[in-house]
Amino acid sequence: MSKRADAAIARARSSRDSDLADLMEELRMATISTLPESRADCLRNAEWLRQRFEMMGFEARLVDVVEGGNPVVAAEWNGAPGRPHLTIYGHYDVQPPDPLELWDSPPFEPQVRDGNLYARGAADNKGNHMSAIKAVQHLVGSGGLPINVRFLLEGEEEISGRSLPEYVRSSARDLPTDAVLIWDVGFDEAGRPSLATALRGLLYVELHARGPAVDVHSGTFGGVAPNPINTLARIIGELKTSDGRVTIPGFYDDVLDPTPEELDAWRKDDATFTKEAMRMMGTRVLEGEAEYLAVERAGSRPTLDSNGFLGGFVGEGQKTVIPATAFAKVSMRLVPDQDWKRILESLQSYVQKLTTPGVDVQVKLLSAGPPVSAGADHPAASALRAAFRESFGKEAALVRIGGSIPVAVDFQEALGAPLLISGIEQADCAIHSPNEHLLISQYHTGIEALIRFMCALGD
Amino acid sequence: MSKRADAAIARARSSRDSDLADLMEELRMATISTLPESRADCLRNAEWLRQRFEMMGFEARLVDVVEGGNPVVAAEWNGAPGRPHLTIYGHYDVQPPDPLELWDSPPFEPQVRDGNLYARGAADNKGNHMSAIKAVQHLVGSGGLPINVRFLLEGEEEISGRSLPEYVRSSARDLPTDAVLIWDVGFDEAGRPSLATALRGLLYVELHARGPAVDVHSGTFGGVAPNPINTLARIIGELKTSDGRVTIPGFYDDVLDPTPEELDAWRKDDATFTKEAMRMMGTRVLEGEAEYLAVERAGSRPTLDSNGFLGGFVGEGQKTVIPATAFAKVSMRLVPDQDWKRILESLQSYVQKLTTPGVDVQVKLLSAGPPVSAGADHPAASALRAAFRESFGKEAALVRIGGSIPVAVDFQEALGAPLLISGIEQADCAIHSPNEHLLISQYHTGIEALIRFMCALGD
Repeated sequence: MSKRADAAIARARSSRDSDLADLMEELRMATISTLPESRADCLRNAEWLRQRFEMMGFEARLVDVVEGGNPVVAAEWNGAPGRPHLTIYGHYDVQPPDPLELWDSPPFEPQVRDGNLYARGAADNKGNHMSAIKAVQHLVGSGGLPINVRFLLEGEEEISGRSLPEYVRSSARDLPTDAVLIWDVGFDEAGRPSLATALRGLLYVELHARGPAVDVHSGTFGGVAPNPINTLARIIGELKTSDGRVTIPGFYDDVLDPTPEELDAWRKDDATFTKEAMRMMGTRVLEGEAEYLAVERAGSRPTLDSNGFLGGFVGEGQKTVIPATAFAKVSMRLVPDQDWKRILESLQSYVQKLTTPGVDVQVKLLSAGPPVSAGADHPAASALRAAFRESFGKEAALVRIGGSIPVAVDFQEALGAPLLISGIEQADCAIHSPNEHLLISQYHTGIEALIRFMCALGD
Repeated sequence: MSKRADAAIARARSSRDSDLADLMEELRMATISTLPESRADCLRNAEWLRQRFEMMGFEARLVDVVEGGNPVVAAEWNGAPGRPHLTIYGHYDVQPPDPLELWDSPPFEPQVRDGNLYARGAADNKGNHMSAIKAVQHLVGSGGLPINVRFLLEGEEEISGRSLPEYVRSSARDLPTDAVLIWDVGFDEAGRPSLATALRGLLYVELHARGPAVDVHSGTFGGVAPNPINTLARIIGELKTSDGRVTIPGFYDDVLDPTPEELDAWRKDDATFTKEAMRMMGTRVLEGEAEYLAVERAGSRPTLDSNGFLGGFVGEGQKTVIPATAFAKVSMRLVPDQDWKRILESLQSYVQKLTTPGVDVQVKLLSAGPPVSAGADHPAASALRAAFRESFGKEAALVRIGGSIPVAVDFQEALGAPLLISGIEQADCAIHSPNEHLLISQYHTGIEALIRFMCALGD
């Protein structure tokens, strides 16, 4: 190991309190990108990040790409000519924290309990990107960076916004790089660091159902009124069989089979994954396609879920209403080589077949991102795997990720550099759920792993 | 026609402005019984009614029956010994006005437009019960009532509350009567006064679905997570076929066939009903069981509707969540001789069969009332039909009502007197919907019809 790494790691170990305090400071900003009222916090967080990069000697700016969007924090240091260039991706926006009543401490007042840091964004993604910033800070503070580094931190990941994709695609010529570290996922259920070979894509739509022109009385009209709740519920029910098979025509046409090596690894991991997934969700069974492994269903099979449904009277007590409208949010996770445009078209005509004569159903596209594949044997991947081994004492698992990082495909297509999809959050960190948390030891060891990774890349 | 009726009608005709103003005064009280914050308005409305009865010489009081419930306004005048006794039923509570944005004028600021009075409760039930109070007031003011009269006005009709049923059943001995006028419905789609021979019953439940113990991320767990929205939607979808047949085992077992006379009348009315129902709802078709007439489906066939559904994230934008819970409100309209207890039991075990392995679904009973039958050829019915003929120039239609008036069965069982189920609201008055309204001419002519009815009863 290089002297440079030794020095930076020593510096990191003596700075743990302030490294944690800085993360907590960022977590106090309620950067919920889906809520207009959180925009001021988003802008504040972006500027806060920009200043930190500037203090580390980076050329840092906020790039406003889309009217009304959140700025991209773009920070660049090119003081190591001839050495490799690494682009690090993260995001400073977070998921909404609701339901609030299920949090044991307020989501934007970070709290340490039992070695974990609890806050919205602690894992996804502030804990991750702060570990990368801290690795750079300790290298800068102990002799300088061994490679050229660019950070691209967006504020629209949780709303699949357009700013960073547009920036990456329109500025591709100005963004040459040797590898893109998508530092936004984490460890597997068995507690191993991971390197992803694929990410699922996402197709997210709303179904809007309209029956009568006005809400009507279920006594007067029950039996003849088209009921948009009943019809929409039927449609949602029919989009997927009770054992998890999506029924949209052609949905599975372009799904690629896994390799025999992947299948072998999954078979070994499946029992652990199943047990951990049940524990994390608090369920007594896993649902889904019985003919596939659980780990495969969660990571590399496409699927469909309704993420929201609202219609009629949902207050306390009863109202004998047949409402005029109802709507549902439905998202599909896609895998290589599914094409979201074909699936959206098929869904649109399928829904017209499933509706009843008196109910109009419109399918509205909220966002779409294709699935992504990534290799694990290029030099940057080897360097990261070695750094994980040395820092965490564990071999990185090669996994397929069930989640989606929409911008990954933009990086891949526009920059043409290999993707490294990884991160430090532990598997049970409850991202997008109440009581999101990050193991504080993961944060500190993650900083060390990134120091080793950058030094190895520079050698 | 009696002199007494002539005098009272003359008095009514010269009091139209103040009769309307009094109704508007009552409509300004937002007596939404389902909302705890409306309780003060409910109590104020009850006391306002009590004082009016007292001013007319009635013995009037507010009866608190159930802890936390709304009082029954019980008013009695027995100054005509030897003459018949009539009990008049109505309710001072109203449905919630939401969705508020669809009202052209605020629901609790009554407004006259094009000969109609717009306000929540204008038809259901304040317009109806005020017409009865006014008929009594004009009779009292022009020589006295020809019969003995009792008003029982409840404040829990829209929440199927327990107060009036408990009062009627526990005080039955003190409530002798010769007929019960359930003055809470109205004219048919063809513009004719109506007298109901049956009311549908109501079984109203909530289905509560629980999947994971916490909200989970659809990227991480989509494909293995039990999704309570998908499962609950499937269940709602399967409770009724797309052509309106309820699938709960045994649901239709006790349904009585209509008489040939009823069927003949319905065949004549069906085209008018169909056209009017489509116009009132603003739909291009009617849904439901194709093998039954539309008028039959709406009035005398049992049915099932979901009245509310909520699960997951329903704000703007997208959240990739699989929620822990979802719930739906489901109501069934029942007809003679269906038994709600048997149907509830069947539904409970049916839902257990329809759910998926990882989703628990609980059925919670909100309220239940059996269907009711009523004759149309006893002396009180004949008197009312004659009064309608004379006042409106039209023969009353004998109909079956699709709606439910839970307390009707309590009156029938506890008091043993014939029921008269009728009222003055026009068919398109939009009860339970935005822009509820009452034709003002119906109100004034309705007062005259009730004056004639009471005088005929007294003859």
